Amino acid sequence: MARSTSGESVLTRTMRILRAFGTVSGSLTVSEISRRADLPVATAHRLVGELVELGALEREPDKRVRIGYQLWEVASRSSPARDLSRTALPYMEDLQVAVREHTQIGVLEGTDVLYLERLSARDAGRNVAEIAGRLPVHATSTGLVLLAHSPPELQERVLGGELREHTRHTVTDPVRLRRLLAAVRRDGYVIASRMIDPAAVGLAAPVRDRENRVVAALSVVVPFLSDAGPQAHVPVLVAAARGISRAMGARISGEDMIHTRGHAPRPSA
Amino acid sequence: MARSTSGESVLTRTMRILRAFGTVSGSLTVSEISRRADLPVATAHRLVGELVELGALEREPDKRVRIGYQLWEVASRSSPARDLSRTALPYMEDLQVAVREHTQIGVLEGTDVLYLERLSARDAGRNVAEIAGRLPVHATSTGLVLLAHSPPELQERVLGGELREHTRHTVTDPVRLRRLLAAVRRDGYVIASRMIDPAAVGLAAPVRDRENRVVAALSVVVPFLSDAGPQAHVPVLVAAARGISRAMGARISGEDMIHTRGHAPRPSA
Repeated sequence: MARSTSGESVLTRTMRILRAFGTVSGSLTVSEISRRADLPVATAHRLVGELVELGALEREPDKRVRIGYQLWEVASRSSPARDLSRTALPYMEDLQVAVREHTQIGVLEGTDVLYLERLSARDAGRNVAEIAGRLPVHATSTGLVLLAHSPPELQERVLGGELREHTRHTVTDPVRLRRLLAAVRRDGYVIASRMIDPAAVGLAAPVRDRENRVVAALSVVVPFLSDAGPQAHVPVLVAAARGISRAMGARISGEDMIHTRGHAPRPSA
Repeated sequence: MARSTSGESVLTRTMRILRAFGTVSGSLTVSEISRRADLPVATAHRLVGELVELGALEREPDKRVRIGYQLWEVASRSSPARDLSRTALPYMEDLQVAVREHTQIGVLEGTDVLYLERLSARDAGRNVAEIAGRLPVHATSTGLVLLAHSPPELQERVLGGELREHTRHTVTDPVRLRRLLAAVRRDGYVIASRMIDPAAVGLAAPVRDRENRVVAALSVVVPFLSDAGPQAHVPVLVAAARGISRAMGARISGEDMIHTRGHAPRPSA
């Protein structure tokens, strides 16, 4: 493997170049790439040139560079993201027709939620989540569902790490967060009211695969209007998440039914 | 740049590995990758190992390898595919509510249509197009719109190349195809009846960017039932394509209005 004087392989440097695009939506100049990827301009120039030739990057008429359709194509075609999206989209659409705001599906990547797909009504309220974007697990409904069903080690890592306060409704106390996660497992859904955006409420429910593992979370985001409003969306959300799980081969039983009587969860209390 | 004895760079071999996933939806063993990418097993093994370490590929519990979420994430986040999808999705959703079959958007990649996004009703009819999948331009409604608005050189290349007959309705005669493309430009939409699938009819309209260039085509796919049926979807399809174009900054004028009076196009006649 070819290594630079810094000992890094070509592929390591290439991934650094690709990741340089991660925080922008659009194109970069080679010198911006070199700065963001922390590579000498000559190295960036040479690697970018080769990546353009291979179709992984594309050069625009103004010489700026962006991710090429061919890289998107190979990355999308056999990605687990596509399998999930493909299974989920019809159910997401049905859900979206009912909710008419935002419907999204996300997975756990490290200690973040990575959103795979989103449908939004044209006049929908605000939503900080984006397709292929990340948000922290502890402050989003999708993340709370994924975290609640993640291995204990990961839960401890998140609970023991920095729990940033995005709004005054974000749960940043590990003890309260642990209790919230237990409630998510018990109830089969979560309502995360104004935890990352003071104007929005997220609701999420787990999506299971054929081994009944929680592999994704389905969520809807609605504007914050009153505490009573969002609860109305729970049945259709849970039904859609169960529909996707079933389509993925999960054995859905009555046990996994939601429990809304008796103990209304108050995650934002 | 490190080159193998065959003179190929690391990146060339890596793209060959990534493209090996292109025709499957799912995972591959290292020996399958080596065969598909036409690389020695040792080379495939070493590069796959490094790509797994970098998060570009992921190894499943059974040791099979698949595209990693991280590669999908970097490829999706700043891809032109995402910009287009993000702008188009709300309009696609409105269109989908009206049509309740399949709604999709595609771009020209080489001489193929590459589909970026698709919404499908759960009980929708058959549709051969897939997200991140390719289909030939001459046999699909999306492709005919893109080809009609592509540079003359590309049109000549397609017209002079092999025009495969997918069904007996595929237009394989260059003279008829040229006439059809002129009709697409004149009418502002196309109805491709049973050209790639004898059970399906595609309808497509152009999507323009701020320079008024046709950068994508929006389409709906409905089951073939009668010749009269699909025409009913033209107004809502064209309105949605114009909506996306407007959202992308195109200057939409009355000139680009559809013309349905007087000359009903008969592409499948």
